[in-house]
Amino acid sequence: MKKVYKAHILYTKERSCFEVLENGYIAVDDNGRVIGVATDLASLGCEDAEVTDFGDRLLIPAMNDLHVHAPQYRNQGIAMDLELLPWLQSYTFPEEMKYADTGYAERMYRRFVRDLWRFGTMRACVFATIHTESTRVLMRLFQEAGMGALVGKVGMNRNCPEGLTEQVEEMVRGYEELANDECPPLVRTIITPRFIPSCTPEMLRACGELAVKYQLPVQSHLSENKDEIAWVQELEPESSCYGDAYDRYGLFGQTPTVMAHCVWSDGEEVELMKRRGVMVAHCPTSNFNVASGMAPIRHFLDEGLHVGLGSDISGGHDLSIFRMMVYAIQVSKMHYQQNHELPFLTLSETFWMATKSAGSFFGRVGSFEPGYEFDALVIDDSDLNHDNYSLLERLERYIYLGDDRQITHRFCCGKAITEPKIII
Amino acid sequence: MKKVYKAHILYTKERSCFEVLENGYIAVDDNGRVIGVATDLASLGCEDAEVTDFGDRLLIPAMNDLHVHAPQYRNQGIAMDLELLPWLQSYTFPEEMKYADTGYAERMYRRFVRDLWRFGTMRACVFATIHTESTRVLMRLFQEAGMGALVGKVGMNRNCPEGLTEQVEEMVRGYEELANDECPPLVRTIITPRFIPSCTPEMLRACGELAVKYQLPVQSHLSENKDEIAWVQELEPESSCYGDAYDRYGLFGQTPTVMAHCVWSDGEEVELMKRRGVMVAHCPTSNFNVASGMAPIRHFLDEGLHVGLGSDISGGHDLSIFRMMVYAIQVSKMHYQQNHELPFLTLSETFWMATKSAGSFFGRVGSFEPGYEFDALVIDDSDLNHDNYSLLERLERYIYLGDDRQITHRFCCGKAITEPKIII
Repeated sequence: MKKVYKAHILYTKERSCFEVLENGYIAVDDNGRVIGVATDLASLGCEDAEVTDFGDRLLIPAMNDLHVHAPQYRNQGIAMDLELLPWLQSYTFPEEMKYADTGYAERMYRRFVRDLWRFGTMRACVFATIHTESTRVLMRLFQEAGMGALVGKVGMNRNCPEGLTEQVEEMVRGYEELANDECPPLVRTIITPRFIPSCTPEMLRACGELAVKYQLPVQSHLSENKDEIAWVQELEPESSCYGDAYDRYGLFGQTPTVMAHCVWSDGEEVELMKRRGVMVAHCPTSNFNVASGMAPIRHFLDEGLHVGLGSDISGGHDLSIFRMMVYAIQVSKMHYQQNHELPFLTLSETFWMATKSAGSFFGRVGSFEPGYEFDALVIDDSDLNHDNYSLLERLERYIYLGDDRQITHRFCCGKAITEPKIII
Repeated sequence: MKKVYKAHILYTKERSCFEVLENGYIAVDDNGRVIGVATDLASLGCEDAEVTDFGDRLLIPAMNDLHVHAPQYRNQGIAMDLELLPWLQSYTFPEEMKYADTGYAERMYRRFVRDLWRFGTMRACVFATIHTESTRVLMRLFQEAGMGALVGKVGMNRNCPEGLTEQVEEMVRGYEELANDECPPLVRTIITPRFIPSCTPEMLRACGELAVKYQLPVQSHLSENKDEIAWVQELEPESSCYGDAYDRYGLFGQTPTVMAHCVWSDGEEVELMKRRGVMVAHCPTSNFNVASGMAPIRHFLDEGLHVGLGSDISGGHDLSIFRMMVYAIQVSKMHYQQNHELPFLTLSETFWMATKSAGSFFGRVGSFEPGYEFDALVIDDSDLNHDNYSLLERLERYIYLGDDRQITHRFCCGKAITEPKIII
């Protein structure tokens, strides 16, 4: 049975502008895919359909988070006064070790998935930990919630504490299990070497082979800060740039690849990313909090790179991708302030990055064009809408001022998604 | 009757660290002033007092907003894609003109005051408009709410649209009325030339004379962006810096003065601010949104300047001073990223700026030391507190992740402040 929803519909087919349908209709087929949008039922061929009417609310594509560490959820918003290394040693690694316990994992991961839901994120590209079993727990929780995710068991076997290291063979075995698990189409595993300094060449090679063998996507960190880049150069002296170090192991676009940060990616690396179709997960709050720098996103877009947004909990402190849009614009305004030849990101460009651009990593996701999976949020902004605002102003105000309270309905691939349960 | 409250008490006597009293008591006298804090009633001399027990909640000083444009409240979070000039011409000035209508003013200002309340801001330093009557409305609304405010009728008579300009004599007359109005001690007017380019020398001179005659504080904008600084130099060629241009008219510390932004304040200007005790209202979200730049707050603190935080609605988009703390730290981390000799702002420093430092502009406000006016917030962070966090981690998480929902009680000068009424 196809479904039809009525509301003020806003989305970005192109990055340069919004499509706006005042009192529009959107029709969705049995498979959860968009049939079309229109301002009348006739042009949708849906005159007889039952219409769910959302009245004066806004209907927009749901959010996609391209980079987030689920097991760092407990550490969200703490220890922000620490520098990177003590932060990793005292907070991040000890916390990740706890995920050897699947009970702890289930308790914390349930909150994590619930809070992604709260903030309207229906698809996420997630780092778990080295632990196969608790990674499986997280995948199950996404499945139960009906939300989409690519979940990575983390590969790491050097420069990390003893409790957070795994033999290459173990890692391969774990990944093969996850890859062979029967999974509904919305949840899959993703090859996730933590980053070059955490993985021996053997582990990186095994990761690349797994990606190709099981046709799995790849995620990791790239050029987040300058010390890290120098360290990678030391560890992989034959590589011409950080990205090339991944490339040599088959981890840079041989299968769909997303790299977080890219704050300092330069000419050659950008060229390679372009050639390989490597996607950028821009994580502006994290780049501020960890004092990494300000990624040159305007430059990336000009170069034709694919860019999405990531919350990067717990380097980032905020799960809301709407908040990431605000920060992304602000970062671009600092580049613009220094060089007026780099126009700052517009709202439509940033919305497009968070929806259609990021969504492309999960399939046909993030737009309301025909054939797209219907991932959507219904926004009741009546408490923010106290004067004669246009629909675009209402959306902008929601992005800048709103929070989870205004999201009244969430859809993923055509299904209404209800609040996932947590363990109190 | 003195009052005693029990909760986990956190505040900053010094900027370098938090005072933390687990299950502490705070005693407040009949005049709303703090008698003392302690972990037992006996040392407060309050064994017989009735205690209001807030249980596991946090009790912290309330927030102070040192720079906010009340009549731009409607424009909060819209038109962020515009550059400064079209934004002023198309959005800011037309909106401010509407405040000739006191009915419109009352409707919008009620929402503004209510939302300051929501986010825990109990004192604010506010720009109104040129209109004496609607400025008076705003002052009355603060009085009725029981919240503290310095409210400025805005002086402007050049480089602004016709409907937003006032003769010098009219301005003086309006200010004299406001200065002579009978006012409870928490609300007062403040001399508010918009900024040098908006005021003729005659108006600036009259402003300086009013400040001294009525012993009124002064607020304005300073060194927000480079074009503005060049323009001021053109308009006031004899001034040695932007701050000096104010100083020549008696508007730079002759009475207590707060200047918003100071993004580009340099050596000589900083020297003058130090000498004159001029306070900085740091508005980090606005400085991002309007592409002004990143104010060197670490440098200002090292120089001994007084610094507080401002939301600067609607250049800023967020009324929450907690959110300003996060942004202030992030800005300082970008300076640190570029120069490791500028340590980033710690949480206690930033909290201190928002409370005790900013509060000093309103009197003995912003701390829980004896004699301070009891401005406080009670925070129920149970929904954020899902693991074994320390009290300081809980506060940090609240600052980074919380919002108005967790604030259960608000106090200003000893009085519990209930939600101000809006007009629907």
